[in-house]
Formats: sequence, C-alpha cells, structure tokens
Amino acid sequence: MLSVRSLIRSGRVLKNVRGLVATSTRLNSTVVEPVVVEPVTVTPVAPVTPGTPNPQPRGKRRLLWVFSALVGGAIVYYLVKEDDDVYVDGKQTGYPKKPRVVILGSGWAALSMVRDIDPNLYEVVVVSPRNYFLFTPLLPSVTVGTLDSKSVMEPIRKYCKRTNTPTQYYEAMATDVDFDAQKVICKDVNHLNNNEVTTFELPYDHLVVSVGAINNTFGTPGVYENCFFLKEMEDATLIRRRILDVFETANLPAQTEAERRRLLSFVVVGGGPNGVEFAAELSDFLREDLKKWYPHLIKDVKVTILELMDHILNTYDRQINSEKVFKRENIDIRTNHQVTAVSPDGIVVRPVIKGATTPQPTQTIPFGLCVWSTGIGIHPLSNLIREKLKPNEIQTNRRALITDQYLSLKGAKNVYALGDCATITPELMIKRLEDLFKEADANGDNKLQLDEFRRFVNLQLPNYPQLEEYGKRAEELFLEADADKAGSITLDQFRTIVQKVDSKMKILPATAQVASQQGAYLAKRLNALSENKDAAYPPFKYRHLGSFAYIGADEAVAELTNPWIEKYVLQGYGAWWLWRSVYLSKQFSMKNKLLVGGDWVKTELFGRDITRN
Amino acid sequence: MLSVRSLIRSGRVLKNVRGLVATSTRLNSTVVEPVVVEPVTVTPVAPVTPGTPNPQPRGKRRLLWVFSALVGGAIVYYLVKEDDDVYVDGKQTGYPKKPRVVILGSGWAALSMVRDIDPNLYEVVVVSPRNYFLFTPLLPSVTVGTLDSKSVMEPIRKYCKRTNTPTQYYEAMATDVDFDAQKVICKDVNHLNNNEVTTFELPYDHLVVSVGAINNTFGTPGVYENCFFLKEMEDATLIRRRILDVFETANLPAQTEAERRRLLSFVVVGGGPNGVEFAAELSDFLREDLKKWYPHLIKDVKVTILELMDHILNTYDRQINSEKVFKRENIDIRTNHQVTAVSPDGIVVRPVIKGATTPQPTQTIPFGLCVWSTGIGIHPLSNLIREKLKPNEIQTNRRALITDQYLSLKGAKNVYALGDCATITPELMIKRLEDLFKEADANGDNKLQLDEFRRFVNLQLPNYPQLEEYGKRAEELFLEADADKAGSITLDQFRTIVQKVDSKMKILPATAQVASQQGAYLAKRLNALSENKDAAYPPFKYRHLGSFAYIGADEAVAELTNPWIEKYVLQGYGAWWLWRSVYLSKQFSMKNKLLVGGDWVKTELFGRDITRN
Repeated sequence: MLSVRSLIRSGRVLKNVRGLVATSTRLNSTVVEPVVVEPVTVTPVAPVTPGTPNPQPRGKRRLLWVFSALVGGAIVYYLVKEDDDVYVDGKQTGYPKKPRVVILGSGWAALSMVRDIDPNLYEVVVVSPRNYFLFTPLLPSVTVGTLDSKSVMEPIRKYCKRTNTPTQYYEAMATDVDFDAQKVICKDVNHLNNNEVTTFELPYDHLVVSVGAINNTFGTPGVYENCFFLKEMEDATLIRRRILDVFETANLPAQTEAERRRLLSFVVVGGGPNGVEFAAELSDFLREDLKKWYPHLIKDVKVTILELMDHILNTYDRQINSEKVFKRENIDIRTNHQVTAVSPDGIVVRPVIKGATTPQPTQTIPFGLCVWSTGIGIHPLSNLIREKLKPNEIQTNRRALITDQYLSLKGAKNVYALGDCATITPELMIKRLEDLFKEADANGDNKLQLDEFRRFVNLQLPNYPQLEEYGKRAEELFLEADADKAGSITLDQFRTIVQKVDSKMKILPATAQVASQQGAYLAKRLNALSENKDAAYPPFKYRHLGSFAYIGADEAVAELTNPWIEKYVLQGYGAWWLWRSVYLSKQFSMKNKLLVGGDWVKTELFGRDITRN
Repeated sequence: MLSVRSLIRSGRVLKNVRGLVATSTRLNSTVVEPVVVEPVTVTPVAPVTPGTPNPQPRGKRRLLWVFSALVGGAIVYYLVKEDDDVYVDGKQTGYPKKPRVVILGSGWAALSMVRDIDPNLYEVVVVSPRNYFLFTPLLPSVTVGTLDSKSVMEPIRKYCKRTNTPTQYYEAMATDVDFDAQKVICKDVNHLNNNEVTTFELPYDHLVVSVGAINNTFGTPGVYENCFFLKEMEDATLIRRRILDVFETANLPAQTEAERRRLLSFVVVGGGPNGVEFAAELSDFLREDLKKWYPHLIKDVKVTILELMDHILNTYDRQINSEKVFKRENIDIRTNHQVTAVSPDGIVVRPVIKGATTPQPTQTIPFGLCVWSTGIGIHPLSNLIREKLKPNEIQTNRRALITDQYLSLKGAKNVYALGDCATITPELMIKRLEDLFKEADANGDNKLQLDEFRRFVNLQLPNYPQLEEYGKRAEELFLEADADKAGSITLDQFRTIVQKVDSKMKILPATAQVASQQGAYLAKRLNALSENKDAAYPPFKYRHLGSFAYIGADEAVAELTNPWIEKYVLQGYGAWWLWRSVYLSKQFSMKNKLLVGGDWVKTELFGRDITRN
C-alpha cells in the first residue's frame, strides 16, 4: 500500500534534482547551442604557505565538481550532438538550382548513398514506402525478442541533411519511371484521403534505383497463404506473435496429442544465413525461455530446417562443417530436400537423391509455423523498368537490373541501380574479340607478342573487370595459350584466353555489405562528377570484409578476409563475441548502439518477453 | 570502413571478459541456485608491524575486489531472483484436490487476485484472451513513443505460481457460464486449427468475473468505422502509426492546403483523464519531436478536445482549473459540445447551451485522427451473465454486474465480479424499512429512542455500507429527523432518515485503483474462507489514495487523500515528478521499473522515435 507521506517525501527529494534535469532538457531541445555549464563562483584560493597541508579542501572539491560537470556535460553533448544535421528548414528559394538526385528505397544502398552524397552539390529526394532504415542482419533476433524492434530501426529522416536545399523524404512508392521526361511517378501508400490514392511526379536529374528485392517462392504453390517470410520488420513481428500463439494454443486443455505436435512443429525452408539464424534464435528462445514458461510442452517441440542443397550455410567456406557446428537439441536438419507445395495440413517435401532415375516419394510435414527463407526475386518496379528497356535487348536478366561496373543502369541515361535489385554485368570481351585483337596488335603482324599482350591487359582492365584476376598473371595466361611456344599468339589462341577470362565473371551476392559499399561508391562518384564532369572515375570494386552467422547457444561462425590473410575462419564462442562486437559497432547511431547493447543485457538478465503484442 | 585487425583485436579483448559473462549467464539460467563467486586465493596477510603504513596494499585491493564481486553478485541475484516462482511443473497428481478458482481476465483486478490468493489453498486457473497484464495508466505515453509498449506489459504467466497444483493460464475467451453445473465455457482465440474454433469447459468451485469493460460509443453513428479507441495495447500501436502516417501523408508534394489541414487535425472526444493525457502526450510529441522533423507542417496542426460537460477532468477537485492549467499551444478545448455523428468527412458536434430552447446548429470538424475516449460499456460476457440472471430481477444495471459489498455476484452462487465489469450495489434499507424499524424498536413502543437508534446504526453498519458516512453522526441524523423534539422518532420519521441514507450510496469509479484493491480483497477473503468457513469477514472498503493526470510539458495534476489530510491538490512540475515516481514504484516487477525508467531517460536524451512499425 502506498503511504501518502512517502509520496510527498519522494516528490520533495525529486524536486531537488530539478536543476540537473532542467539542464539536460535544455540540451536536448536546443541542439545547435554548445553546452553551457552554469557559472559557479569559485572563491579565490588563498596563497598556500608551504608546509601547510590542504589549506583549501572545499575549494578543491568545488573545482572537482566543476570538472565533473564539464565532463558530464561533454558526454551528454556528445550523445545528443548527432542530431545536428536533423533539421530541415524547408526554405528552397533564393539559391541556384542544383541537380536533383532521386533515391528510391530506404535500405542499405539508399542509406549509404544519402549519408555520403554532398547536399551542397545535389538536391536529394528520397522516396520509400518505409520511413526507416532496418538493420537487416539483426532481424532474426527480433523474431524471438532478443532485440526489440526499435533497436534495429532508424528513421531515414535522421539522415536528411539540412542545407539551403534540404534533403527531402517522401513516404510513397515509386510505381513507374518516364525515362524520356526524366521523372518518377509515385503513389501514396497510406490511403488516408477517404481511400483515394494520391499520386505525384518527381522530375530527376539522376535517378538511383535501390528498391531491394522481394521474397522468391520459386512458384511453389501455397507459400503466400501458409508461410511467413523474414525480410521486413512486419515479418519479424508476425513470426514472434505466431510463436507465442502456437504455444498458447497448444497449451489449451482441449488439444489432442496430434494437434499439439502439429502446432509445435516449426519448419524453416532454406538453410542460408537468414534461415539458420532464425532457427538458432528460435532454439535459444526454446531452451532459455519457453522451456521455463511451458515446461510440459517442450517435449513436443520440433524444429526442421529444409535445404535443397547438400549442406546448409553453403555460401560459407567448406572448412565450416555447418551441420556439425549447428547441432542443437530439437533441431532436425534435412539437406537434399525439395519443397513441392505448402498447404494448411503441412509442407510437402521430396528427398533429392543424386543419380536417382525415379523421383522419390513425397512426405508431408505438419507445422504450426513455417518460415520461408529461400532467396530473393525481382521487385515489381525493377521488373517494370526491365520490361520498359527490354526492346534494347540489354536488360536480359529476369532476376535483377543489369548495370555496368559504374553502377549505371544499362539502356538508360542518368539512372543507377544498386543493392539487391541490381547486378553488375560487365561487357563480355568476346563481343569485341576482333577489335580488341586489332587494337592490341601494335606492330600489325596479326600476332600478339608478350609485351603487346601485357599492354592490352593493363589498358583494358578498367573496361573489363573480369581481367582483374589475371592482371598480375598476364604472362601466365599468355604462356598457357601459346601452346606451340611460338613466342606469340594468334587470334584463335587469343579467343581461348578471352573465353576463359569472360567465364570468370563474378556476380556479387545480395548482401547488406555489397549494397552499402555500392551506395557509398555512387555517392562519391556523383560528388566527383559534379565537380569535374570529364574526370575519369574508377569502376566499383567490392571489398569483402567477412561474413557472420549466429548459430545459437552463444556461438557463431565467421569468415573473415583481408588483404594479408586470404581467408580466416572462426567458429564458436569467440566468433559470437566478434559477431556481437561487429554488429554493435556497425549500428549507425549512438542511440541504436546503446539500444542494441541494452537489449542484450536485458535479455541476459530478464530473459525474452512472452507478452503477445 | 572496418579493419579486420581491429575486429580480431576486439574479439580478443572481449574473450577476456568471458569468465565474467559466463557467471552472469549461469545466474540467469539456474535461478534457484545462490550466487557462487569464483573462489579467489587471498595471499595470507603478514602481521602488520605498528608504524609501518600500508604493508599489504595488494592484498587489501584484492579483498576490495572480492567484496565488490559479492555486492555485484548480490545485486544481480536480487534482480534475477524474482523469477523464483515462475516455474510451472505441471505435476498435479498425488495431492488432495483443492477447490478450483477460475479467474476470467488479466487486468488489474485479475492480476491483483492472482498475486494474493494462496495457491496452497486453491487451484487457480486464469482465462484471458490477453496473455499479459497492461499497466493502463501509462498507456497514453505509449501512443507517442514516450514509453515502449513492452515496458508497460507483463506476462500473466509470471504470476502463475508453482505449487503442487500450479496456477494455470489459458489464452482463451470465456463465452458462457453454466451457473447450475458450475462451469465456464471457453473458446480459443487464435484459430490456428485450420480456422476451426476449439472450445473447452472449465468446472469451477469459485468463479471470479473480472473481464473489464468495452468502449462505449453511446450509440453515436460512425464511431467504430472512423475513430480510434485508447484502451488496449493494440489501440496505442494503431494511434502511433496513424499519427506518423498522417504527417507523412501531409508531407507529400501533391497535397492540397485543405487536405493537409484536415490530415493534421487531431480530435479527442472526451475530456476525462485518458483523453486529456493522450492530448498532453500528443502535444509533447508535437512540440519536442514532430516540430523538429516536420517544421514546415507544424503550423497546420490543430488538436481539439471535445467534452460534453462544462469542464474537462471533471472527476478532479474544482480547485484544479483544468482548462487554465491545461493550456497548450495548438490545443483547443471545447467544453459543452456534444458529438452527434462521425464520418470520414469529419466529426459532427453540437454546442450545448444551458436553458436554450432550440438545439444549436451542428458543426463539422474534419480530422486526420480521432480518438474516442468517452467511457466504458458492458462487456459481452457480463451482458450475457446479466441476461441469464435477469429473471431474478436482481441484475438490473444495464452497464455493469451488480455485486454485494463482499463482491459476490448477486443472484449467483460462488461467483464474484470485480473491476470495471462490476458495481457494488448494497441493499437499499428502504426495502426492509418496517422490519428494520421493528428490529430496532427494542422496547416495542413503536418509536425509536436515541439509544435504540444508535444501536441500530452500529448493528446494521456491516450490512448497509451507505450508513458508514453517518456512523459517528447517528445523533445528528436522529435530531434532524426528530423535528418535533419528541425525543423519539416514528416510522415516518425513520423513513426520511432511511431515504436520505440510501440516496448517499456511492458508486466506485472504474479505475485501476478500485480494481486492484478489489482483487486483493477477494483473494484475502477467499484465503480466510478456506481456513474457516463460518468466520465473519468484513465487507470491501475502498481506500482512495489519490489520482494523477499528466497534462504535458512536464506538468501534472494530482489529488491526494489520506486519513490526516482530507484532500491535497497539487499541480505543475512537482506533481509531474510525483506522478513519475508513483507510477515507477507501482510497476510490479523490477524489470518493468527499469524499463519504464530507461524509456524516460531514452526519450529525454534521444527524443521519441518516428519510425513507423
């Protein structure tokens, strides 16, 4: 019971710290002002006679207070100051018009672009139906409540910088692009105008398409109706709710044994990092929390991972024996299994056996929750753009937009595509085989000598990134082709070289790392372009820094690369610490760093929440 | 860019604290074990020769470390130990059957009941479609993100105590009660069985109906279709999303001036604490956050509070001039306004003028968000129960279930109703007027003398709580009725007294405080009843501790009562600190105390989030 006296007392006590709070409130509301520490009258210190110890302990203590206040103020100011460039003043008149860059999307590529482009050179407009950036690699943690949703989200407006022409953000979806008139057609996504859809057009000077991708069901029937995806925040929220619903429903007294087992069967389709990390988080949730809350149900829980290939996490180095590392209680990993259909009764799978002449019989796995995480498909806008540019016979990839190595969309002018919606496809050298040979043949003898060949490689490297791998091994290539030891190569021998090099073209994976680097690259390229239109700018070059996958029970697998060590593989508890440190440091704002760290501590102390909201 | 060397370095550094974390992890997972601090070998301290200062500074420092570790460990243990009674072991055999108490609901009354009832005396079963308890007084703070939703929720299972017959919780909705067979009919709310609804029956020995209430629209057309409520967590989430949607939509380039103004018009119907607190939080959100993010829109924002009565916060003391206190930028308080209809085009209001013979013409206020917060109506289950007991002509209140002053549902056996769904209606004395008179008339002279009347008041006080107010003023009542100074009162004079006293019957407000006290009362009463069936137990007595309403801009109004001071009114900044301290201390778990406190600090430092999820 509450004593009124204690209330009043606590009210008084709290009033005393009013000054302190008033200061911090002011700090928060007036962002541009520097921290003003209230002037403290320091009594003049009397001259210290040697030999008299501590003549002015109070004065010293006061100085200590001032010092502490200054340090404290500086810390608060540091925490708060990142809001500096948040203000948008909306005044757009009286300045010379700057070229407008319209960025579609608010993911890794778009954010990285917005952060790095110079708003003094360009008027930047961001259009995305999602008004926040999502730190996708930590999304699996949100599905079970290890992290709170807000901790991995940041308002995109935070990065809308204030200049004479401030960066604009519109919560809308781009539905079409008019390449000739250079404008994007956008529509409102909220339908608050009595369900009428507001549309508007945005003219652009440069258009950046970074809309990402959608989930790919590979045409499997029943996926949309019966499965959950794990791509957006909404997906994570729905999965969390379903996990809790499934347990509460299984707990009802009227439930049959079979129905309980069905409800508590969790199926993950796809053994890539996303699927495996979800299964890992689920396994943690089961072992650390749900076991405690529903001890009588845990024996009926089963988690199944279905993977078409012969092992999970197959983008990782073979040094990592994923199945062995990722061995968890209740988790059943079924590799070489193809999903043929999904229905409310279960997921239909067919074992794939190499070399078998007749297809294996199918099995049906009943489930309470099925998470579909098999890969990505083309975004409707990307597909529309592709269709529009189709007559040029350049956009021939049905799964992504094709760009050159400068990230410019092929077949369009002043349009760029990056991130998951795009794929860099350099020109094939074979298309210009004879011209290349002629250009390389300096002495016109219809043969290429080693020095001619070396010159050719160095000259063409910027145009054909597939040559890069052979840059330092030009001689090796030459000697290999020059089978008859003639000291020179003919056109036919040159063709074998070109074919070999063309076939080595790498497609970058659809990861946050690639998208982020592409955004930064394009921003810097546009910045440079604005200052000197004719300057040559190097093509985009991806630097793989490493990949992580959390595998549950405070363990992770990590694959790191750097210029010195070719590949560095780590797994277990140390990799988990590394995973956490890297992802913490990779949070863009101090706020999210604190939130993510705080959530980890919270989960450690109190466990994961089971309230269904 | 990320340096791989720095990664590896941080991994190594972090490995060093592995021991520390391992300890805290163990603490978390094995809850019942006491904290084990790793034994530290303390080097034996050499005997200190007097005069030699600090001979063993290292040993002392080490002891300090051990001491710090012990204190730290104790703090962590204290934080974690509240999980002690969480375990549910599910073993129900081998013990004598205890009477079963079925509690319907998971609000204030239900939680308070679950916390206080002795699980060694009763088998407790909680049934509620909502698997968490919601700290409703802080719900308005969630609508704008001052607090996170998780901070004001607690899983009801947390309070399901572990004994030989552990407390059960079922996520289901009670749809019917069979009073004769003493059982509740429940249905599953999740529909995970291919959309088939699972139903089950729960026999009870005691049934506690604490299902709360629903929103009351008073039959106003268009409310459900066009307005938001503010009662459950879902409501708060939807309101938050709508506020952000409204701003983003108003920000679109194609928006007309009129449409922008419509979108940015926020209407709150009902000037009670809930409505006012929402308007206050909204005003904070506008002034502290949205103004920063949408500076060009803020001039078009308007908040209107509509109240039927002549002033807002009218349950508070008249000393608080609410309209004057709650004067905020952009907020328009319209008292004496009745809402007649709501449509997508706007809310139709009619000014109410006292004494006016013809009704005033209506006005239409367009809105982007309308929050309806006018009061509560009867819950469907309560209504069903009322209909079932109607033939007894006891459940005559169309807005709540009628109980006696012991919280027993009138007209049913072993059924109790508490919280918002119930109202205590003591018997009217007038019904037994002549019997009461006869019983009081000890000397049989058909008149009551003062001492007879005094005895009557004392005797009937437990049965008729309406007498309470006159308990110490029996003589005053007597003298007032004895107008002819006869020194005694006749039956007719007695009737005037009884009518006056009956009319003073107070109806308790539908607040968290009442519900909470009722739950605790009933739990203790049932505990006592179990030990001694025939013991007299005093009727429920409500003790009003005070009420708070947050009015924005770090100010609150508070009304406090206690036995010494009749009423204590406080408003402004001090009341706000008091409000925060009280609500923080009223959080049931240490976890939520930390979360709520953390959220307040977070909002102070970083502002409120504008990501839409």
